[in-house]
Amino acid sequence: MEGNTVFYIEQNRLPFEFIINKAFTYQECCVAICGMQIRGAGAIGAMAGFAMALASVYASRDAFRDHDGNISPKDYHAFLRAARSEIEATRPTARNLFYATELVFDAGMRSPAEALAEAQRVADRDAADSKQIGEYGNSLIRDGARILTHCNAGWLAFVDFGTALSPVYMAHKSGKKVFVYADETRPRSQGARLTAWELFQEGVPHVIIPDNAGASLMAQGNVDMVITGADRIAANGDTANKIGTLEKAIIAHEFGIPFYIAAPTSAFDPACASGKDIVIEERDEDEVRYQEGPDADGAMRRILVCSPGSHALNPAFDVTPAKYITGFITERGIYSLRDDPSLILPLKGRKSRRAE
Amino acid sequence: MEGNTVFYIEQNRLPFEFIINKAFTYQECCVAICGMQIRGAGAIGAMAGFAMALASVYASRDAFRDHDGNISPKDYHAFLRAARSEIEATRPTARNLFYATELVFDAGMRSPAEALAEAQRVADRDAADSKQIGEYGNSLIRDGARILTHCNAGWLAFVDFGTALSPVYMAHKSGKKVFVYADETRPRSQGARLTAWELFQEGVPHVIIPDNAGASLMAQGNVDMVITGADRIAANGDTANKIGTLEKAIIAHEFGIPFYIAAPTSAFDPACASGKDIVIEERDEDEVRYQEGPDADGAMRRILVCSPGSHALNPAFDVTPAKYITGFITERGIYSLRDDPSLILPLKGRKSRRAE
Repeated sequence: MEGNTVFYIEQNRLPFEFIINKAFTYQECCVAICGMQIRGAGAIGAMAGFAMALASVYASRDAFRDHDGNISPKDYHAFLRAARSEIEATRPTARNLFYATELVFDAGMRSPAEALAEAQRVADRDAADSKQIGEYGNSLIRDGARILTHCNAGWLAFVDFGTALSPVYMAHKSGKKVFVYADETRPRSQGARLTAWELFQEGVPHVIIPDNAGASLMAQGNVDMVITGADRIAANGDTANKIGTLEKAIIAHEFGIPFYIAAPTSAFDPACASGKDIVIEERDEDEVRYQEGPDADGAMRRILVCSPGSHALNPAFDVTPAKYITGFITERGIYSLRDDPSLILPLKGRKSRRAE
Repeated sequence: MEGNTVFYIEQNRLPFEFIINKAFTYQECCVAICGMQIRGAGAIGAMAGFAMALASVYASRDAFRDHDGNISPKDYHAFLRAARSEIEATRPTARNLFYATELVFDAGMRSPAEALAEAQRVADRDAADSKQIGEYGNSLIRDGARILTHCNAGWLAFVDFGTALSPVYMAHKSGKKVFVYADETRPRSQGARLTAWELFQEGVPHVIIPDNAGASLMAQGNVDMVITGADRIAANGDTANKIGTLEKAIIAHEFGIPFYIAAPTSAFDPACASGKDIVIEERDEDEVRYQEGPDADGAMRRILVCSPGSHALNPAFDVTPAKYITGFITERGIYSLRDDPSLILPLKGRKSRRAE
């Protein structure tokens, strides 16, 4: 945010176009979240905080003042409440959003200046947590490591750094040679589209692989570790993340390759006892049946990529049992359930929920 | 083949258009193999046999006769030899092709009638083997079974029935309720395009799943067995097949779900001691980076589906160690290495090699 303008990367057009959009009003912020121009837990949370702050600034403008130049606290608070409802209706499953709106709303009830400061703090904390995850994670990465990752948990999904990719960036910047295998991550291909694009921007050597290729690469000894993000982590360590994460975790386990989850402690949900309590979201089958991208002339096309008469299943997430997870890389340190199974329960964080 | 005309399904246009093409000359057969209008080991082998027979018929026509109406054996044999070289140059890695041309060439050296009969025998044997695989495989399928398969090893890839799908068809026809999860099978999506299309034609209930979804479905107890085809089976039972087969085998093993390979004994290669001797073919990265299919207007489009600056890996096959394979469903019966590890070596078949 600069002045009263929010700058954000338009993720729908990536990796084919890099556009930085501006949002001048809280309504424009809402449209960006609804339309998934902003995606990723940290990024959504920060945007929601800024939206709340912009609503607060707007409510203090001249139009709200009486002929003596005073703002009625009643009108101001009513406006803030209405704006909060509007922001929270954009993506009801993204828990980070509610966390951010709550904090910035409370600050906004005091003053627009406090709202702006609080929104910035929410965003800064997201970036700081991610950076800390990167530093802890970097300690696990040896020089020359070949790292496999699934989906996108990089700086696009957060205010900065990311979770799974943050340790990779830190290792790369600290001079270690790292190489990343980016799972394509069908059906939405966040790996091929977003992770590969991020790594390219950062100059990190990498290659896109079909989701089918992981086991073969591991069998040939080409993968040293796996790091992914997390959607939600149950009290016993079972972890919900993008569909396919469980496959990689089992295969890594079979080949004795360390498998790490990188996530802020806010992804731990003490209210959720185990993976059995996590409901798997089923998304539209057309995400599997169709693909979108530019043709040779750069025109965006949507094509059918399967037999027209057949249906598809599209579970968005899967649950990886804690036994396959070598450790959790958080902003507070690295936790291994294998060393101490009681480690997770005390991690009562913000209970925020990450959504794609 | 009817008269001297070969009828074949144009697989490049599937599943978006169903076209039966005709080949009247051996050259047209060659073009169909080269252009992958015909794909799959059995289908390629049969087509090569018919091509050889058509060459033999052509060489016995009037144009080759002298003014007394006699054909010079020298000219006839020379023509056959040249035609054989041409046919064998179409797809040099498809071992079935060489098996078929050899048999039909030998018959053709005697007479065109014998060549035609031999070509038909090659095709009939492929169908008969596949049917037998289906009958043995059916004995493993319980009523209500939910079967996961990878890639396409159905009747499109063979003269009829197929290998992995043949037991499914037999079970379905025998009145058992079966349900198939068809892995999309990136990058060429043979599962989403061909297997789903075949199952739809046969009226077998099925659904396409992203390759990432297998573990999640198995973890939820939704998969009763896995059946795939095989590219090549080493003497110790290690099996090369479409990339991703190893992932499914490991995951099925982890969840205690039976994992079967369905293949004719000709896929067993006694000259290959173990999976280590199998070289994994690396295909063009653009098979991963681009996808092709019809847009809303039915026009075929090729689109980029990843970050433009990034490269992709595209290993075509992987090798599944024998320890993950519950059994081999062949035309001679079902063999389990777990019961008797010496079972495989005596299976010295035709040494034919299946290629996609």
